[in-house]
Amino acid sequence: MSSIETMSVNAIRVLSADAVQKANSGHPGLPLGSAAMAYELWANHMKHNPCNPNWPNRDRFILSGGHGSTLLYSLLHLFGYGNLSTEDLSQFRQDGSLTPGHPEYGHTVGVEATTGPLGAGMGMAVGMAMAEAHMAAKFNKDEYKIVDHYTFVLGGDGCMMEGISSEAFSLAGTLGLGKLIVLYDSNKISIEGDTDIAFTEDVEKRFQAFGFQTLCVEDGNDLVEIGKAIEAAKADTTRPTMIRVKTKIGFGCPAKEGKASAHGEPLGADNVTALKENLGWPSQEAFYVPDEVYVHYNQLKEKLSAEEETWNKLFAEYEVKFPEMKALWDDMHAGTDAEALLNSEELWAVDDKTEATRNLSGMIINRLKDMIPGLFGGSADLSPSTKTYMNGEGDFSKDNYAGRNLHFGVRELAMAAIGNGLALYGGLKPFVSTFFVFSDYVKPMARLSSLMGLPLTFVLTHDSIGVGEDGPTHEPIEQLAMLRAMPNFTVYRPADATETVAAWYYAVTSKNTPTAIVLTRQGLPKQANSSKEALKGGYILSDSEKSVPDVILMASGSEVALAMDAKEELAKENVDVRVVSMPSMDVFEQQSAEYKEAVLPKACRKRVAVEALTDFGWGKYVGLDGAYVTMKSFGASAPADILFKKFGFTKENVVNTVKGIL
Amino acid sequence: MSSIETMSVNAIRVLSADAVQKANSGHPGLPLGSAAMAYELWANHMKHNPCNPNWPNRDRFILSGGHGSTLLYSLLHLFGYGNLSTEDLSQFRQDGSLTPGHPEYGHTVGVEATTGPLGAGMGMAVGMAMAEAHMAAKFNKDEYKIVDHYTFVLGGDGCMMEGISSEAFSLAGTLGLGKLIVLYDSNKISIEGDTDIAFTEDVEKRFQAFGFQTLCVEDGNDLVEIGKAIEAAKADTTRPTMIRVKTKIGFGCPAKEGKASAHGEPLGADNVTALKENLGWPSQEAFYVPDEVYVHYNQLKEKLSAEEETWNKLFAEYEVKFPEMKALWDDMHAGTDAEALLNSEELWAVDDKTEATRNLSGMIINRLKDMIPGLFGGSADLSPSTKTYMNGEGDFSKDNYAGRNLHFGVRELAMAAIGNGLALYGGLKPFVSTFFVFSDYVKPMARLSSLMGLPLTFVLTHDSIGVGEDGPTHEPIEQLAMLRAMPNFTVYRPADATETVAAWYYAVTSKNTPTAIVLTRQGLPKQANSSKEALKGGYILSDSEKSVPDVILMASGSEVALAMDAKEELAKENVDVRVVSMPSMDVFEQQSAEYKEAVLPKACRKRVAVEALTDFGWGKYVGLDGAYVTMKSFGASAPADILFKKFGFTKENVVNTVKGIL
Repeated sequence: MSSIETMSVNAIRVLSADAVQKANSGHPGLPLGSAAMAYELWANHMKHNPCNPNWPNRDRFILSGGHGSTLLYSLLHLFGYGNLSTEDLSQFRQDGSLTPGHPEYGHTVGVEATTGPLGAGMGMAVGMAMAEAHMAAKFNKDEYKIVDHYTFVLGGDGCMMEGISSEAFSLAGTLGLGKLIVLYDSNKISIEGDTDIAFTEDVEKRFQAFGFQTLCVEDGNDLVEIGKAIEAAKADTTRPTMIRVKTKIGFGCPAKEGKASAHGEPLGADNVTALKENLGWPSQEAFYVPDEVYVHYNQLKEKLSAEEETWNKLFAEYEVKFPEMKALWDDMHAGTDAEALLNSEELWAVDDKTEATRNLSGMIINRLKDMIPGLFGGSADLSPSTKTYMNGEGDFSKDNYAGRNLHFGVRELAMAAIGNGLALYGGLKPFVSTFFVFSDYVKPMARLSSLMGLPLTFVLTHDSIGVGEDGPTHEPIEQLAMLRAMPNFTVYRPADATETVAAWYYAVTSKNTPTAIVLTRQGLPKQANSSKEALKGGYILSDSEKSVPDVILMASGSEVALAMDAKEELAKENVDVRVVSMPSMDVFEQQSAEYKEAVLPKACRKRVAVEALTDFGWGKYVGLDGAYVTMKSFGASAPADILFKKFGFTKENVVNTVKGIL
Repeated sequence: MSSIETMSVNAIRVLSADAVQKANSGHPGLPLGSAAMAYELWANHMKHNPCNPNWPNRDRFILSGGHGSTLLYSLLHLFGYGNLSTEDLSQFRQDGSLTPGHPEYGHTVGVEATTGPLGAGMGMAVGMAMAEAHMAAKFNKDEYKIVDHYTFVLGGDGCMMEGISSEAFSLAGTLGLGKLIVLYDSNKISIEGDTDIAFTEDVEKRFQAFGFQTLCVEDGNDLVEIGKAIEAAKADTTRPTMIRVKTKIGFGCPAKEGKASAHGEPLGADNVTALKENLGWPSQEAFYVPDEVYVHYNQLKEKLSAEEETWNKLFAEYEVKFPEMKALWDDMHAGTDAEALLNSEELWAVDDKTEATRNLSGMIINRLKDMIPGLFGGSADLSPSTKTYMNGEGDFSKDNYAGRNLHFGVRELAMAAIGNGLALYGGLKPFVSTFFVFSDYVKPMARLSSLMGLPLTFVLTHDSIGVGEDGPTHEPIEQLAMLRAMPNFTVYRPADATETVAAWYYAVTSKNTPTAIVLTRQGLPKQANSSKEALKGGYILSDSEKSVPDVILMASGSEVALAMDAKEELAKENVDVRVVSMPSMDVFEQQSAEYKEAVLPKACRKRVAVEALTDFGWGKYVGLDGAYVTMKSFGASAPADILFKKFGFTKENVVNTVKGIL
């Protein structure tokens, strides 16, 4: 290692240790241990341009071990991304700073993904590598490989223990994602101690089983060996590669090196001093970096910028030679034309047939696939049931990366992480799909979609006891509440064809919010008065005679028809009922106070929620004087029509419930 | 294969096919494909007693591929468990029958665990094998191995794809669970088609990486080879074993064999006829089984019963020789003495110090460990933070199965499944632990705890923006709503030491409901008036002057102190406030209408919920005229005190919010 390289690696260590020490909070262990591999990668093997962090053909880098965020912030500072300064580093973990505790996408320039929950970055990296493969298959021409880059992901033992990484990497191996390169920061230390207490598996062998090339670097500070391994990884074009880099957590800090205590707490002032002494750092001043180190990084930055210039020239020629491809490229990167879709007669055309909303969704997907070239998605081995197959668009596979239908296997959690990776990548409009009850598995990654503001679409079918015979393990009860409760996440549960189009319209035009579309297994009648008003989340489907109704029935999805039936029955007894269809509480909440009051006037206190799921969360509309026709327990195994009766979803019960509060 | 054995295997197939056909719903593929291995196991290698399904030393069998439930029901019928009749089989998937769509624990005699969500059974089996190892270490004496049995689990490709199985089996390998035997029904078919579309990994190699012995049976109908493999699995006492059994999905049905369509729909009447013809079945009558087959199964049943008799003799001698061990055995199996714990001064002793509830919980765990010998648990690599370590009780490891502290590694989902397995096993009082935000990962298995009615305890710390610097990925917002929304699941979020004892008391005395105890990272003051009333879920902590208060402030956990401060301030302005502490909405909901009205009188409409989490779910108490001091978004990265101010958790904001509705 030349002296300037040693200094440049140690600069990462020193800045990281200083930032954590100043904050008096954070995780110095990972940055100290993996500084060398990160430096070697960013300096000599990764194609990136600090002057244009959004260059489409850049290599992607994800720090899956997001707790080691100072590693990333130090790199971004030293490489000159977004003018991230030492002042920013000194504000690590402070309110409003550019350097929050875990890397946040959209907040700090150069951060490709929000990470922190371990293993999530691994799944997102697989998604990015899939996106690259697809875009390359779609756009590249013989001498114009305009999409041609790697995806790197760095994580530690925790990321390897999480099941999501096995799910994602098993799929990556199946798909032969040769441009995915995993850097495994293998330090054999976990929070509770040596990894041997819980994790003695042969990780390399596991990756070989998945179909990866595996490499091992014995000394995590050996830049030459790290470099060779990265190049060997690149050279294998048919298999993803996992490089195990043996490191010492907290490297360079005599009192902490190799110990669990280096992981998640500041080294302590004395130990920071000792670290700097031990590394031969020229100053004890906090956040001090010698000029020659900055000069070195600046040279690297210039070299890196040149790579984009070469690509820009290539792309300029491509644009001339393939104008229709350039148009498609622009179209895919511009995002969805909301206005055009809103006015598309083809999209909104529906008929009067009774139909399951999952089937309607399948029909709509097959309309949208032609309107949105970036629509790209699939299911966790349930597409025949979730109806998410795009006809004639082929299957995304090792042999056909141009295919638009994804087969995730029975891996819901990784599917959602991959969906996030696809959404982060650019140019694609991804969707993922499973049974609604299995949104439980999806939830941790859906939360990251929300946090990152990614407009990923979740198609979740079999949305109530309407599942029927499969019984309680397969019947969602609390899942709608679970998703409604999440910030920046929209759930639509449409009642018929028009509302299903509205749900899809909302999902594909959303810019910063993920959407779940929750759909029935069983057929639902078309509502005569359903309309684009569904885009307001909640609306009057059938109004009362009086301006303040005797009763408001509120329902979503399959229970809207039931509410309509009950209204008809109650009318016979001169009870004046308004029916409010509430396909999306989340969207309704965002409407003006006036609109909400117009739909649900405060003067009307006799309000009944009808939904074949938990009542949890309806109280804000039902109030203290209303009532519920909802599920109070888990479901059961029986034909669906029997279950709806058994659990009280009958016209009679709704009518009686209303009468009970009159 | 002798003729009677062939017939006995085919009886399973025929009954399964008939049941699915009669229901016109279900999954015939797995039962047809794996009938032979299941027969061989149950008939010749598994120690079980149909006459006493609760015999403690029985081998455990879990059907992880729960969709193949007719396999299990057919076995239970043929072996004579609980008099499950062909009439019961003919009621497959009908309301109230003993044969629901997926196996349900506590509903059908002989079903060891509720399964359906793929991979869950794999995790539970690991938990059972851990329980066996622990109980054996605790109770066995040289010549008295009173705990000495195997745990078998059967699942297919889907179970292997799910990340939970990698998590659980990596741990099983680390722990050297030699009595865990996994039967892999390897048919290479998934719902979307051949598994090659998403799953080309070398599963055996993956298991070898985990530290398993792996075996392969090429012909899934070869009883001799299956038997040999099971015996070889038993012979390896230091490693768990995975036996890959190559099967054909839908075996025996000419038109369906080897096809995805065999998986999840009835074969069709003609195909059932063809199946029976093809198998040489003597009758086309539905649910017909020849007498000689029943005779054969009955002989097996008698042989099996004899095994328990041998054990009973052994246990009788053990009881005489080791009366103190027998007393401990009885104590552990009797369950917790609720009355004694309720009156235990030692358990309820608290002081007045400001303390984080996670620390208080740690203190309580260390009291309970001596009062409840079956208390057994740990954390997903966070015990130094979640404070769940039982001092002096040792670590459960390959070298010390007597240890009571579990190290799950960074594997939250498998941890919860293992917790279920431990709870199902008998004699143990398990708890599992992680950060509250990661309850997202835990949720799918917590749902199974609820469905099965298992009193598993979840210790979830770092329960709000009080997490501070780690930022939004680590700050729970919607998790409390998520768990509160789930049926038969209790969440406690205690406000101080007394309420923390109450939460633990509730958890360890619960018989049929899992409990989450949600705890702070930061210190909380002791409330002067907190009491065992917390066992009612919600109670008046500080009453108003008037019988109908001007305002009710409702809060839980860290916000109770804030509500108390606001009350004091409002009193200065002659606003008469009642403070209701609501450590558990779930438990409060179970109180009588009178009690609830006494705490929250309907006449008081000015109600404010104060909780540093989403307001979702509070509406039922806040009504249409109240207000919220809650989180409206994700959190942020900054010191906790700054975040509480930033997001409005100040006395001033609570006071102003109250004034806003007066």
